[in-house]
Amino acid sequence: MANIFSNIPSELPSEIFEDIVVTENLKIERIVSKGQTSPDIGWYDQSENEWVIVLSGYGVIEYITGVKITLKQGDYLHIKAHEKHRVIETSPDEATVWLAIFY
Amino acid sequence: MANIFSNIPSELPSEIFEDIVVTENLKIERIVSKGQTSPDIGWYDQSENEWVIVLSGYGVIEYITGVKITLKQGDYLHIKAHEKHRVIETSPDEATVWLAIFY
Repeated sequence: MANIFSNIPSELPSEIFEDIVVTENLKIERIVSKGQTSPDIGWYDQSENEWVIVLSGYGVIEYITGVKITLKQGDYLHIKAHEKHRVIETSPDEATVWLAIFY
Repeated sequence: MANIFSNIPSELPSEIFEDIVVTENLKIERIVSKGQTSPDIGWYDQSENEWVIVLSGYGVIEYITGVKITLKQGDYLHIKAHEKHRVIETSPDEATVWLAIFY
């Protein structure tokens, strides 16, 4: 057993990406942000589908279409493969914990 | 966008199982309990691996080996295929929201 909110350093100079489960067809990943945006340049353009939920803090996702979606605690979103998107804001004061499932 | 904590009835006469994502190789499911245990008789004996996290409330899982594990908010667990287990307790006063990924 482990806890999704544990092992979060108080200082986060950059985002943390951690694999929880990885198989040929699946990746379960924890992402922890604190004010960061990503990717540094350009857009995520993933070959997998992604289901993502915010478990603490908040994040704002922008699609290349211009649509912006704010995800707060418990909010989840499907991002289809090759739907170009990026994270344009995360909570500066508390850690944003994302749980992302790529499949 | 949707929220994992929304659409929870105040009365839960039985557990709620809801598919969020289903593909050939993956199921993401929300389970909401309020005092229930499951399955009604016997043990879960699943052909898939399961990764499960408790997002609110708590639940106690017992393995057929006798090991019992209490999962509180944010705690997660891997349950391998065919590891027989059951839920022997969930919080009676607040909804236990489980997010389970079968793969």
